[in-house]
Amino acid sequence: MKISELSDRSGLPVQTIKYYIREGLLPKGTATAATRAEYDGRHLDRLRLIKALREVGDLPIASVQQIVAAVDDDDIPLHRLLGKAQYALGPGTEPHPGDPDWRAAREDVDAIIAELGWRVLPNAPTRDLLAQAFVALRRLGLPIVLTDLRPYIEAAELIADHEVGALSVDEDREKAVQTAVATNVLYERVLLALRRMAQENASAVRFDDEA
Amino acid sequence: MKISELSDRSGLPVQTIKYYIREGLLPKGTATAATRAEYDGRHLDRLRLIKALREVGDLPIASVQQIVAAVDDDDIPLHRLLGKAQYALGPGTEPHPGDPDWRAAREDVDAIIAELGWRVLPNAPTRDLLAQAFVALRRLGLPIVLTDLRPYIEAAELIADHEVGALSVDEDREKAVQTAVATNVLYERVLLALRRMAQENASAVRFDDEA
Repeated sequence: MKISELSDRSGLPVQTIKYYIREGLLPKGTATAATRAEYDGRHLDRLRLIKALREVGDLPIASVQQIVAAVDDDDIPLHRLLGKAQYALGPGTEPHPGDPDWRAAREDVDAIIAELGWRVLPNAPTRDLLAQAFVALRRLGLPIVLTDLRPYIEAAELIADHEVGALSVDEDREKAVQTAVATNVLYERVLLALRRMAQENASAVRFDDEA
Repeated sequence: MKISELSDRSGLPVQTIKYYIREGLLPKGTATAATRAEYDGRHLDRLRLIKALREVGDLPIASVQQIVAAVDDDDIPLHRLLGKAQYALGPGTEPHPGDPDWRAAREDVDAIIAELGWRVLPNAPTRDLLAQAFVALRRLGLPIVLTDLRPYIEAAELIADHEVGALSVDEDREKAVQTAVATNVLYERVLLALRRMAQENASAVRFDDEA
């Protein structure tokens, strides 16, 4: 197909597609004349992946480049590839190893993960993300107690088992990453909305005698 | 106490405290001289609430004013007060009633809540938040199927029952709102981090033969 059709089908302007080619995110088309090139379904799939990473994952071009390179590198197993995509997603956190509160929180996080026996890499950004929330709660006078975490841990396991179980093993790598990023970001919003609705309902049931 | 002590104990600069007084968020102290006023524990509690709303909830002054007014209005029952605080929290969404995709998604949301029998007000912003995520998923070729939602609904109920159950009935209104906002925002981050960790673990268990 021509670049104009690629643009129509991907929903991306021609200028954006050319920019992705210049940045090495998208392979060049097959030249059919001095100023013409032919594109195929692989280009469209790649554009859909880039679109998900950019628009849904809100990732900078540099992160997209790394993920796209990992998709193309068959030596990287699917589990590592999905991890790479997940690690690239925000929100970012900055570790504060000089701050004793932060260090204590990070030690709590590491102890909890060890206790759960979860296989989470030592450099996973989620460890810092959780530590950061622990610090903020403690500073508000609401320190975390392990029993308070129980329902969140149970809920996280319930959801993750469903999500990872739904991935097909022989899935195309490109499609698997696209789905994983979209699922991560958008089902996070689904979960956020449902949790707040469930709160409103539980509060109505418990406190609202009028209704 | 003097304003300087109020500043020390709340962790807020004197200028910020004066600004909150001018904006009507914080009652004036009791004048003890032409340029001196005395503050008490109620002022400190109010400042802690404002701080949670501003710094954790990231709310604009106008929303803080509304919530503070509701805290002071004993005719507003606790359930409504907590709802008001929750509705003020982001992320904001804009309904798109002119867009057929959005309308269909919003109808799906309303049908799901009705089916669950959840007591969620028709104007709850969470309905639009969920509809927005549905639209984005559909546009990526990942339309929502009700069975896919099941684990998220179950997880949301699990968490909300715990959270609402943990609120003490005879809690001070000021403190209840402060805790609810902090819990909403910060435990959302806790849940986000735990879900991603649980994903990494589930993916390692399923796909990673090396480890």
